[in-house]
Amino acid sequence: MGVKEMNYTKVTENIAAQLRTIVGEKNVWTDVEAMQPYGHDEVTDPAYHHLPEAVVFPQTTEEVAAVVILANEHHFPIVPRGAGTGLACGAVPSCGGIVLSLEKMNAIEEINEDALYAVVQPGVRTADLQRAAEEKGLFYAGDPCSGDSCQIGGNIATNAGGNRAVKYGTTRHQVYAVEVVTPLGKIVELGARLKKQSTGYCLDQLIIGSEGTLGIITKATLKLLPKPKYTLDILAVFDSVDATIGIVSKIDKAGITPTCVEFMDNITIKSVERFLGEPLQGSAQGNYLIIEVEGKDEDDLDDKALFLDALCSENGASAVLVADSARIWKARKAFAEAVRAESRIVCKEDVVVPVDQEPALLATILKLARKYGLITRIASHAGDGNIHLNILKNEELSYDRWNEQVEKNQQELYTAIYRLGGRLSGEHGIGFKRKHLMKAFTNPDELDMMKAVKRALDPNYILNPGKIFDLDI
Amino acid sequence: MGVKEMNYTKVTENIAAQLRTIVGEKNVWTDVEAMQPYGHDEVTDPAYHHLPEAVVFPQTTEEVAAVVILANEHHFPIVPRGAGTGLACGAVPSCGGIVLSLEKMNAIEEINEDALYAVVQPGVRTADLQRAAEEKGLFYAGDPCSGDSCQIGGNIATNAGGNRAVKYGTTRHQVYAVEVVTPLGKIVELGARLKKQSTGYCLDQLIIGSEGTLGIITKATLKLLPKPKYTLDILAVFDSVDATIGIVSKIDKAGITPTCVEFMDNITIKSVERFLGEPLQGSAQGNYLIIEVEGKDEDDLDDKALFLDALCSENGASAVLVADSARIWKARKAFAEAVRAESRIVCKEDVVVPVDQEPALLATILKLARKYGLITRIASHAGDGNIHLNILKNEELSYDRWNEQVEKNQQELYTAIYRLGGRLSGEHGIGFKRKHLMKAFTNPDELDMMKAVKRALDPNYILNPGKIFDLDI
Repeated sequence: MGVKEMNYTKVTENIAAQLRTIVGEKNVWTDVEAMQPYGHDEVTDPAYHHLPEAVVFPQTTEEVAAVVILANEHHFPIVPRGAGTGLACGAVPSCGGIVLSLEKMNAIEEINEDALYAVVQPGVRTADLQRAAEEKGLFYAGDPCSGDSCQIGGNIATNAGGNRAVKYGTTRHQVYAVEVVTPLGKIVELGARLKKQSTGYCLDQLIIGSEGTLGIITKATLKLLPKPKYTLDILAVFDSVDATIGIVSKIDKAGITPTCVEFMDNITIKSVERFLGEPLQGSAQGNYLIIEVEGKDEDDLDDKALFLDALCSENGASAVLVADSARIWKARKAFAEAVRAESRIVCKEDVVVPVDQEPALLATILKLARKYGLITRIASHAGDGNIHLNILKNEELSYDRWNEQVEKNQQELYTAIYRLGGRLSGEHGIGFKRKHLMKAFTNPDELDMMKAVKRALDPNYILNPGKIFDLDI
Repeated sequence: MGVKEMNYTKVTENIAAQLRTIVGEKNVWTDVEAMQPYGHDEVTDPAYHHLPEAVVFPQTTEEVAAVVILANEHHFPIVPRGAGTGLACGAVPSCGGIVLSLEKMNAIEEINEDALYAVVQPGVRTADLQRAAEEKGLFYAGDPCSGDSCQIGGNIATNAGGNRAVKYGTTRHQVYAVEVVTPLGKIVELGARLKKQSTGYCLDQLIIGSEGTLGIITKATLKLLPKPKYTLDILAVFDSVDATIGIVSKIDKAGITPTCVEFMDNITIKSVERFLGEPLQGSAQGNYLIIEVEGKDEDDLDDKALFLDALCSENGASAVLVADSARIWKARKAFAEAVRAESRIVCKEDVVVPVDQEPALLATILKLARKYGLITRIASHAGDGNIHLNILKNEELSYDRWNEQVEKNQQELYTAIYRLGGRLSGEHGIGFKRKHLMKAFTNPDELDMMKAVKRALDPNYILNPGKIFDLDI
């Protein structure tokens, strides 16, 4: 039996009343109009929208635990949710039940300047934490592209990546510990504010990236760093996609450790140029590599800039320049909006491969796009092998016809990706949007282990059912 | 029912014959004399020694899987084992069954210079991998103190730390992927050679550090780095323990990112001096902080040395000097042997606390030692809060009386450590030596989650039973 057929209890007026007793009258919504924003994430396609039966806004960890206990008693699903900026429908209630929005648990509880850590509630916006750290001369390295709106709890649940993951790792690498409400309603802290430990199973890393299926994050202790003193952005423009991407492994090998290495292909640069209404350097035929480096002083930056200039020039760059950071990042960050301006219906792929396999992947993507007549826009976190391929709906095709082409493309693309040692998702997660692909491309024995862990920790299948995989019940 | 009472099948001659069919005649040992070395690890106390019923030496992953399937059929325990350099009896068969030694699976299968990774079998010695990487101008950052003898599989199973964890993290941070034989005998690869991914549960990090209880590591894909160009060791000598340890947080705050920050207290320096028969700088009353830094060139090293000189001098150092690296590391690495030369019976604690809580922990350790009349030797990976406290048996006390004092000390010490946000083990693991402490000091709900995961993945309780915790069966 699949989860769809599971006999969950509907959120009746009686259950809603009990929820109100736990979190307060105004913190339970059942009005259909008001709940609309909680029925989808950033995926615009209405096929992926599902209205919750109620939205619940707890304000304390104890309230979260009480809601989970109630859900176990009555057997209704809970879908934990941050800012709803996801791209895989992980926070959308595909099996009914309640959305548990953590947005009111949004306090930065502590920023410790001497011991370099922050304690935050899950509803804290990533950008707010970044700013709070910066005000104390510190630095929070997590930096998803949706940083202005996304929240730390969601970042942790999806193991969000972003631009700076090349140097600093993804969200899972920023986390010392998480306070979690388990699927059975217990409150536990997993992990600790330690640089190392070998004291039992690493449950913290298991929970991180589990998309709200194994626990609800109610607090996080996060690493802070001294603020980097000097940064510099280099823009290298190449005529050939292959040459652009081919540089990345060479940078790794040289031990430069850039903060960011971003790629945009020419057709995407032109799209952003139109959207911004500003001319972009080399847009006639160039492909971009944006390389950000940090240094301990100006001389250090100069050394790195000279090295990168020589490396890129020797490997086919038509121009290498010190970029106007504000302008170049504005262009890079306009990617998603520029795509949206071109088409409301977009298939967003978030694939990841080993860095040395990126040239092969790019070649495959472009070959398949030609084969299936797809309109592509590509920006990638090239430094970590994570490629955002956006496929825009062709105006001349019906939705169904276009979708058919997209699906054929997906089958071939993912087959190639797994052959290259890659995976479905670099940073967006699986949610319910990609779970059919997860099933198709994951080693069944590995998937069985995931399901066994899920069953063990959530025996009543309360937390975010129907995400990542379907349990065979 | 505890695991001790579990009705495991004895390894009969019939089972031994089946094992021989799988791995070959000469790769199954049942001779009691020959098996002696496999009945203990580096823990010298005979109370912790347990002879296996057989030792099995597989040579391929498929053989490992076949042995595991046989164990499930007949219900006997398997204790996976690397070099046996553990300090928590993790690789010692406390519940009977076979020791599965991975020592014959010792090939370095690949070192990829361009993509910076190595693929190795579990029986590869850590030092052999380090050397193989170095021959290609590369660097494997994992560096347990037992590196010359320990093996990669054991490093991964215990999440081994070592000196360089301060900058590079522990073994879990060096791993891209592990091939694992699951407790049910399936072969899966967990993780991938990727810098990021959000594609289902992070089972690789769950397996790493699980001490052979959730899977047998049969291959690992490990990260390599460009070899650091310049390194320098600074020795700072302080009269006060508190001042010595107090520096560590200040180094972090300054963003220096040292490779190693090691501490030795005065009584330990004197012990090493006696053992080596060589005079050690400042041994009259000094405590050591050894700080290793890397730099991109000589100037960079000079800058760091000047900064550290000023920082240590301003904070009470009686001497700060550029150390003779070979000599100072010889002294540091002689710690374990010097202790062994003083006493065959030693209680080795491997506690870890947040770095900013180290001064408080050291003060507690010294206070408790006075209270219970204990003879201590202390060396610590101060840069990551991991303190190796060795307690030597007092000659004038009976073993039982001394042990009583040690246990009283442990209760008070661990209570203090958990209050400081610390944990039982920084890098040695729990094994069966510390599982009573694990039970006493771990949040029961967290421990229940570990047990639930164990039950889910190893329903027949075949892999390394009686380690980390006892299942309540």
